Amino acid sequence: MNAASEKVYTACVLIVGNEILSGRTQDENLAYIAKGLAASGVLLKEARVIPDVEATIIRHVNELRVQYDYLFTTGGIGPTHDDITSECVAKAFGVKWTLHPEAHKIFLALYKPGDLNEARLRMAHTPEGASLIVNPVSRAPGFQMGNVYVMAGIPGVMRAMFDSVRQNLKGGPPVLSRTVGCDLPEGTIAKGLGAIQARYADVDIGSYPFYRRGSFGTSLVLRGREPKRLDQAAQEVMAMVRELGGAPSIE
Amino acid sequence: MNAASEKVYTACVLIVGNEILSGRTQDENLAYIAKGLAASGVLLKEARVIPDVEATIIRHVNELRVQYDYLFTTGGIGPTHDDITSECVAKAFGVKWTLHPEAHKIFLALYKPGDLNEARLRMAHTPEGASLIVNPVSRAPGFQMGNVYVMAGIPGVMRAMFDSVRQNLKGGPPVLSRTVGCDLPEGTIAKGLGAIQARYADVDIGSYPFYRRGSFGTSLVLRGREPKRLDQAAQEVMAMVRELGGAPSIE
Repeated sequence: MNAASEKVYTACVLIVGNEILSGRTQDENLAYIAKGLAASGVLLKEARVIPDVEATIIRHVNELRVQYDYLFTTGGIGPTHDDITSECVAKAFGVKWTLHPEAHKIFLALYKPGDLNEARLRMAHTPEGASLIVNPVSRAPGFQMGNVYVMAGIPGVMRAMFDSVRQNLKGGPPVLSRTVGCDLPEGTIAKGLGAIQARYADVDIGSYPFYRRGSFGTSLVLRGREPKRLDQAAQEVMAMVRELGGAPSIE
Repeated sequence: MNAASEKVYTACVLIVGNEILSGRTQDENLAYIAKGLAASGVLLKEARVIPDVEATIIRHVNELRVQYDYLFTTGGIGPTHDDITSECVAKAFGVKWTLHPEAHKIFLALYKPGDLNEARLRMAHTPEGASLIVNPVSRAPGFQMGNVYVMAGIPGVMRAMFDSVRQNLKGGPPVLSRTVGCDLPEGTIAKGLGAIQARYADVDIGSYPFYRRGSFGTSLVLRGREPKRLDQAAQEVMAMVRELGGAPSIE
């Protein structure tokens, strides 16, 4: 269990947006970031959704950036009055919110002189000392300030930003998974599954019930960093299911 | 602006589940709860996603239940080792976790004597003093403990539980919305929109850009409790868009 002695890199996602809290918009960014972090060996430990309210954003940014190695925010970096994430991050860090020379160049190239109005120029501002996160989709960049990565909320843009950021993250070995499909209900296998979990502290075993073709079944998801241990644990789970009269499968 | 002087009921959603943080499962419950709360005049102010870890669940439950009028949790009330939300809520409240007589009856009716094993009987336990939330889908109930509503994670079950809970929530007038479709990009309307927002403190105006049929447009969502004020503000938004050369629509 070498993994246990290595540093575990942790992360949190902060989703900024009234549209998620009103139910108008279904968030799609969290699942994307989650999968990317697992592949990079970074443990996503928490996510929060908060409204576009200055004091709230500042409070959560400051609470979370000291708790986790990485904080990823999505949403609130456009040109309208409800886009305040960028200024709030500056306030959270106690630094000025200033025109970023590189971002300014991007916007000067993007707009005709008359079209680069005050609202659009706001998007060229970052907290002082921030470095840009490129936006190959619609150009307006995100930025990194310390361990805080500020990204767009629009999924297509967010994904492009996150992909470029992810390449440079420090992480551990990727988190791998095995899924055992089980045709028995959770209540039948719970005891045996708990016993296996107790023997594999380095494997995280989750049980997810489903209802398919008229009967209850369970997806058993094993996650960990060591392929051999995962395979061993998965074999034990399958043997346990067989012993209880089920026909397990590796999904 | 009578609404401002009335008590505003607030809520938070706490999503408990490793499967959301690993990206394996796309949460669908938050949007559903959000829409229901808006209809009940309850303001959803925050949501969090946390892992199935005892100390973490206890900490967040205790932090959030005093901050908001209502706390809704989803996930972690099944029979397996990773289903620990119920015990954790008992610990958060500092009360015993005991067999709930009504829940016990439900399970006695549901299973043949030999099949009601220890794992399934766990699901008949609640914090002492809790009242049950009925589950018309798969029978195993959720529960209410103080201002904390503990519900299943499986969307079909969660929705049924939430629907029954929602009827009895105290809230204000429902939150209504108007959506103005605008064929101009955000950067063009940002200044005018901000000016309108500044005049309507009781209307929350959100701006959501989209890219459709080769050009940028913006959905402008106005939310508030007073239909007349919403209609007024929406008319102002439409006039502003027209003035800038756009052709707005009420969506």
